[in-house]
Formats: sequence, structure tokens, C-alpha cells
Amino acid sequence: MTSGYFDESEIGDSRKAGPYFVSKEEIIQFAKQFDPRPFHIDEEAAARSVFAGLSASAAHTFAIFISLTFKLQPPIFAIAGMGYDELRLPNPVRPGDNLDLESTVLEMRESKSKPDMGILRNQVHLRNQKRETVLQCISSVLVARRPDAKPSM
Amino acid sequence: MTSGYFDESEIGDSRKAGPYFVSKEEIIQFAKQFDPRPFHIDEEAAARSVFAGLSASAAHTFAIFISLTFKLQPPIFAIAGMGYDELRLPNPVRPGDNLDLESTVLEMRESKSKPDMGILRNQVHLRNQKRETVLQCISSVLVARRPDAKPSM
Repeated sequence: MTSGYFDESEIGDSRKAGPYFVSKEEIIQFAKQFDPRPFHIDEEAAARSVFAGLSASAAHTFAIFISLTFKLQPPIFAIAGMGYDELRLPNPVRPGDNLDLESTVLEMRESKSKPDMGILRNQVHLRNQKRETVLQCISSVLVARRPDAKPSM
Repeated sequence: MTSGYFDESEIGDSRKAGPYFVSKEEIIQFAKQFDPRPFHIDEEAAARSVFAGLSASAAHTFAIFISLTFKLQPPIFAIAGMGYDELRLPNPVRPGDNLDLESTVLEMRESKSKPDMGILRNQVHLRNQKRETVLQCISSVLVARRPDAKPSM
């Protein structure tokens, strides 16, 4: 697993990225644009809510996950996300959190329509500094094949 | 289906929101922050890519979906998103697109842990002005129950 091509991936491979520091200002700014509910934009209202404090919008947490996918190490030549299954946000993202991403290959198959690409299905966990999962899903990602790869693995 | 409480929802109910106008500037600004790949931030590079033109980040499309959920009509007293299944982005979001959201109730059940809430499972479609789906998923949403609702429906 030294290059980013599909062909060098194996089931069970784990890639990591982070940390991503989440500031209070970023939480409020993102939520004002896309999810302006009081517990995402107003500290006092958030303290009184079921969330007991300011927390990031689910859309913001998802955006942080996507931003970390480009920093995964070892690298992977991801071309496009194809889909996301069983997306859950079991714990809130709080101001000051440091998030890191772990992506583990669950399944891999060649693309039927694109012989120069393969598809990796990954178990994804975005966790905070307390090792609590704040986002998890199964992502399906289109990945470049090695130029000299045989059409059938 | 005249109020936003869980108890007035029925399977098959459809709610709508939109349009949401997507500007080129917003696509580029969002992508620079969370998904700075050339086909999201550079028109010339995008024209040469497999996407054949600038397109919004998947994270941006998801954020637009979330922002429209608060504008659904008839309204719904949504407290929190619990999860998203089978999330797919079958067509790209382009500069100048007008997106609208349709959410249809698939299943409904009382919350076991929170007697004042219920859970709606919805089939969601975000579509552009050509009626192409740009995002689809099944969302599970925690919804307030009518204060006088019986503990068992």
C-alpha cells in the first residue's frame, strides 16, 4: 500500500487524516448560512437546548469529513464519491474539538463501466479528541486504477 | 396535516421546499473551504474534467439539502436529523441551478426513549430545474409530538 491506486489497496487497509480544529466562529458561520437553528448559532439558546451547548450542524460535520478525505494517509487517488450509506452523527461536534478521520476498506471491486477505475467501499469514522464518534458512514469511492493494471484483477 | 406535529403526519405525506438558487460564487467559495478540487473551484480545469464544467461539492449539495429541510411546507416540527441512508448524488449541481426539495413520509414510529417525540423516515429528492435528481436519500428525523398526544397512537 505505497501508492494511491486502487490496485494497491487491500481489504482492511486503514487510512487516517486530521486533526481538524473546529472553532466556535466556524460553527456559527456555517450554521448561519445553511442551518440557522438557535443551538447552532446562539450560545445562550444552545445552553438551554437539548444539546446543552453550541454544536455544529450535521451539514458542517459532513463537510469536515469530506475535507479530510483529501488528506488521508497513505494517499488514495479518489476521483469521486459515489454514495454514503448508514450516515449517523452519534455525538455532537463542539467548539474547540479536534476531529480526525479513519477510513477502512471493507470491499473493493472493479468498475464495470470504467475500466480505468475501481470502487472502494469504506467504513468511515470521524472522531473527536475524546475518541467519541461524531460521524460514521460507509462511503463508496471511485478510485483510479494503476495505468498498467490488468483489466481483471 | 395542518400542523407540524408528528401526530398529524401520515405515511405518504409529501412536503416541498425551494427553489434554492446556486451561484457560481457560492460553489467556488464552499469548495475552497471544504473540497478544493479543480473541478469545484476553477472553471477552466472543470471544463477539462470528467464533470465537463464547474460542479458543486457533494458536501455543498448536502448542506443545501439541510438548509431546505427547514423550509418544508407544510411545516414539520423537526428537532434533529438522526441519520441518512442510501445517500446518492446522481447528477452534478451546476452554477445557476435552482434546486427544490421533496420529502415524502415512508415510515413513522414513536420514540421509545422520548415519549414526546416521534421518528419520521422520509424519501428525499433534491432536484434541479430540469427535474434531474442531484441528491437523494432516506432521512430519519426526530419530530415533536402534539402536547396532548396519547402515549400510544
